[in-house]
Order: sequence, then C-alpha cells, then structure tokens
Amino acid sequence: MIAFDADDTLWVNEPYFQEVEHKFCALLEDFLPHHTVSQELFKTEMANLSLYGYGVKAFMLSMIESISRITEQQASIELVDKTIALGKELLEKPIELIDGVEALLKGLNGTYRLVLATKGDLLDQERKLINSGLENYFHHIEVMSNKKREDYEKLLRHLDCEPQNFLMIGNSIKSDVLPVLELGAHAIHVPFHTTWAHEQVSQTIDKPDFIQVEKISEILKYLS
Amino acid sequence: MIAFDADDTLWVNEPYFQEVEHKFCALLEDFLPHHTVSQELFKTEMANLSLYGYGVKAFMLSMIESISRITEQQASIELVDKTIALGKELLEKPIELIDGVEALLKGLNGTYRLVLATKGDLLDQERKLINSGLENYFHHIEVMSNKKREDYEKLLRHLDCEPQNFLMIGNSIKSDVLPVLELGAHAIHVPFHTTWAHEQVSQTIDKPDFIQVEKISEILKYLS
Repeated sequence: MIAFDADDTLWVNEPYFQEVEHKFCALLEDFLPHHTVSQELFKTEMANLSLYGYGVKAFMLSMIESISRITEQQASIELVDKTIALGKELLEKPIELIDGVEALLKGLNGTYRLVLATKGDLLDQERKLINSGLENYFHHIEVMSNKKREDYEKLLRHLDCEPQNFLMIGNSIKSDVLPVLELGAHAIHVPFHTTWAHEQVSQTIDKPDFIQVEKISEILKYLS
Repeated sequence: MIAFDADDTLWVNEPYFQEVEHKFCALLEDFLPHHTVSQELFKTEMANLSLYGYGVKAFMLSMIESISRITEQQASIELVDKTIALGKELLEKPIELIDGVEALLKGLNGTYRLVLATKGDLLDQERKLINSGLENYFHHIEVMSNKKREDYEKLLRHLDCEPQNFLMIGNSIKSDVLPVLELGAHAIHVPFHTTWAHEQVSQTIDKPDFIQVEKISEILKYLS
C-alpha cells in the first residue's frame, strides 16, 4: 500500500497560498509593513488551528480576522470584500501537476494499491483530485483532519494494512515522514521548494525505513 | 449495515445555526429588517455552496460576505469581528444528544455494523462525535462533501456493502432518504422540529424500503 500526500507532492499548492498572502499583505500596507502583516496572520492561523483545522476556508477566516487587529479596527469593509475575493481565487486555481507525478503513478499502478492521504478542506481536496485527472489511479481517498501518529494509526486500521506494508510519500517531514516512521511504516521524503512555516522542521533522519529523494521521478527505481 | 446521519438525527444542530443567524440579523437591524437579512444570507450561502461546501466555516464566510452587501459597504469592521465571534461560538457549542439516541445505538450494537454518514466540516464533525461520547458505537465515520446518489454509491463501494443490506437513518428527506431509496437501499426518516430551508422538500414517499417514524425511539422495534 502506497499513500501519497497531495498538496506540493502531486500538485503545486503552497506557492498559491503564498501568492494570496502576498496580495493580502499588499492590501494592508497602509497600516503595517508586509512582514508584520504576515507575522500577524501566522499568529492568527496558529491560534485558530485547533478550532478551524487546515484548508482554504480556515485561511480565509484567519485573514479576515487579522484585518481588524492589524488596522486597529480602522479598516473599511471593502478590505474584507477584497480578502474574500482572494480566497475564492485560491479555491478556483487550476491544478498544476508536479513533473514526473503521472509517470510515477502509471509505473506503480497494478503493482501497489495507491491511496491519497491529505489534509485540508474535504470538498476542496476532492475537487482538486478530480481536476488533476489522477482520480483513477487511487484505490482510496482519505482527507484527514490532521496527520499525527494517531491519525495514521486510524488510517491503517481503516485500510486494514500492517505498518510494515505501508509506505507514505510526501513533501512534509513533519506530517508525511516522522509520524509514519514512528509507527514502523516506511516513508519517502520528496522536498518541495516552498514549505509553509507550520510544516518546517530541521531534523536529519537516518533510519532504514526512510528514503530521501530530490525529485518524485527518482522514486520508481526504489520500488520496482 | 446501518448508517446514521449526525446533525439533527443524533444531536441538536439546526437550532444552534438558527440562533446564530438570529443574532447575526440583530447585528444588522440598523440596515435591513431581520427577514431581509436572513434572505440575503441564504442567497449568499446558495451562491457559495458549490465552492465552499457545507459546514460552519462556509456559513461564517457567507455571513461575512453578506455584511458588505446588506450595508451597501457602510458596515464597520466591528460587525465582522462580531460575526466571527458568533461563528466561533457555534463551533464550540456543547453536544446535546437527541432523546433515545443512546438507547437505540446500544440496542443495535452487536447485531448491525453502525456507520456515521454526515456532511459538514471534517474537523468539526469529528470533534462533535468525540464530544458526543458515541464514538465507540461506530465502526466507521464518513464525512461526505455531499449526499447525492453518487455520494452514497461511493460510500457503499467503500464499505463493500450491497444496497439491499444498507439502511440509512436521518432527518432529511432530501439527503438521507431519497438518494438512498433510489439506489435500492433502505431508509428511515426521523423528522426534527427544525429543518434548514435548503434541505426542505415536500414529497410523500410510499415505498416498501421506506419507514417513517415520529421519534428515534420507535426505530428499534422495526429492527429487532
């Protein structure tokens, strides 16, 4: 059983979020410099994480909430309208597959059962999968509210799969690699050039169940 | 296999939404009468449904978006802050089980495999289930982005269950009964005193696979 993370593993995601955040900071530059707006937004996101979870709608609500604090309640409602428009733009972004993804899925198809295991908004992730054209490669789609050890335990129980038969492939050391290795399953890390601050860790992993590659196209040689 | 809807079938939900909507209309009564605000909000929710899906975060974003239109961009940002606070209040509501739910689940447990099949925000529904204390009765939890015929088809494939072995119990004729009967599965309708406008249908059903009860406590006699 091979599970793939979706955002920034199969398709581009974080650069789109950062682009929207950049535009959001520009909307507020009369009040505070870019960098400070960005910090305020991140603080708001972290404060709301346990209540809202991951995904675009949570991001939109945190942007909107930050406006009032950043402007000391001096913002016009127009700034809120513009922020909602930015969020809707993000939800409607076209899917851009990462190079080598489809070739890898084709190569693994038939030999392994492929699963998609992703965080985010349920409807948004389903829509992205359909728009990606990759839906038919996957035996099962799991949108997870979090990717901690206990969430993977639940996934494995649900898939009726032993840890030693499970491989996770993803771009986040924190969400796709560490909790999976902890369970005794396998993981491959494929870095993406941009990582959300919340997902960043600095850790060197030296375990037999772990493989580090540079690009997703390198994976096939380890699995065939 | 018996699947239960969650909101307004196992626990109280719609009255909490309506209470928040009522407070939201009161916030805006300097601009438009309650009823008109409520209509504007519903229009916004329907326009956003395909983009946002169901759940509290979608509801919050639609309330916020409505403020600007209702006030012709004259609202202060404070109204947005208050609306966000209303939404967070909704997310933090305690769970109030509907009378007879736990007795029914206890009575069915062991004889049937029980599944929870609900729409809404993934994290929010998971949290409600944990807070309900009912988690251990369920073999599987499925948060669905929609409840149309094709969504149930996907669920049945996923559960590896034939339609004739599947019974859905819920408060919405539109979401819990009609698509399920269409597939050749069974359904029981348990009305709740309050139904969201989007879920309302006026239809009389006369099919052998369908049972109408008044209260959830009546169900056990049909199944034992």
